[in-house]
Amino acid sequence: MARVRNDEKYDAQRTRILAAAAKIMRDKGYAAMTMEDLASALGVTKAAIYYYFPKKNDLLLEICEDALDAALQHLRALDSSNSPREQLERLIFDHLTSLIENIEEFTVFFQEITLRKESRARRVLSRQRQFTEEVVDLVQRGIDGGAFRPMDARVVTMGILGMCNWTYRWYHSEGKEPSSIAREFLDLLMVGMLPGGGREAPANHGDGSRAKQ
Amino acid sequence: MARVRNDEKYDAQRTRILAAAAKIMRDKGYAAMTMEDLASALGVTKAAIYYYFPKKNDLLLEICEDALDAALQHLRALDSSNSPREQLERLIFDHLTSLIENIEEFTVFFQEITLRKESRARRVLSRQRQFTEEVVDLVQRGIDGGAFRPMDARVVTMGILGMCNWTYRWYHSEGKEPSSIAREFLDLLMVGMLPGGGREAPANHGDGSRAKQ
Repeated sequence: MARVRNDEKYDAQRTRILAAAAKIMRDKGYAAMTMEDLASALGVTKAAIYYYFPKKNDLLLEICEDALDAALQHLRALDSSNSPREQLERLIFDHLTSLIENIEEFTVFFQEITLRKESRARRVLSRQRQFTEEVVDLVQRGIDGGAFRPMDARVVTMGILGMCNWTYRWYHSEGKEPSSIAREFLDLLMVGMLPGGGREAPANHGDGSRAKQ
Repeated sequence: MARVRNDEKYDAQRTRILAAAAKIMRDKGYAAMTMEDLASALGVTKAAIYYYFPKKNDLLLEICEDALDAALQHLRALDSSNSPREQLERLIFDHLTSLIENIEEFTVFFQEITLRKESRARRVLSRQRQFTEEVVDLVQRGIDGGAFRPMDARVVTMGILGMCNWTYRWYHSEGKEPSSIAREFLDLLMVGMLPGGGREAPANHGDGSRAKQ
């Protein structure tokens, strides 16, 4: 019992340190953050942090892994008995709202992970690629089954992920609810910007020639 | 005449230094880049760089300003006698293709600018906000005039910019042509993913309840 309580205390303190580190890294960047900054934000000694995270780098990688785990978890939680369209909508909704709820961690992930060269970071990036590939597959299944129009599944997936992930740069808690943003993006992705649910024929904007005139 | 030639030589060397710096900053991040890295990449002495850029910071801000100038220039070049839809399509096409053509500079801009605290960086960010506001206005004019369906112009603008800007993270020169990516994104934004140009009614995905079942 005492053991369980200690584990809980350990985990809680670990989570608290990671949350504070993510906040500081988001504000000033990983390179500029010192362990002093972190200790001072938490009101503890540096030694109290080293006990949990011997290196600053451990903090960074842990934050990045947590963010990616959250994204992968939404993918794993999809009900494969649902249609590709339903699954994609569910994934976009869950990914976007969870990104906003954990915006500090995702900001650190997006800001820092591509600059890291160590093998642990490369594994994170490889799992991120795996996430992307699974979304590409989902979009492709939707195209093959006729739920979506013929498109380049990879480029469209990158567009969807860009739309969602970019939120980390502009979202402010005073603004719209995360769920409203997700709904707006889902409408935009499914029916586009044209009126009448996209009933109008697409313009011949393909080569940009019309706008060039 | 000699003066002009010297100016040209000066500008060319300046451009060369900035391009090399952007490449290194993209690969290892601003914080990790040293003036030695840059001198060595260019095959010159550090003094030869200091002559053009006394501080590493100057290099960074110059790269960011150039990237933003390019984006703003596309906005300024829009023909206001065209419809909001034509102008938006033109802007998306030009912004996306120019971002890909200058991907090193834009990567440095997106990676570093939000972490800078100096007043020159804040001015860059304020001009970036101005760019965003003008796109929001353009989208809103399209909505008001009936070219676009009723939407939240700000959220939709952020979605569009996210889709375009995120390209800096995944684009590889071996992949699709920039103009093909732009066309795919324009179709996605205008008519969405549903078949028949979005003729199908939008699903009731609003609250995510359908996918939850």
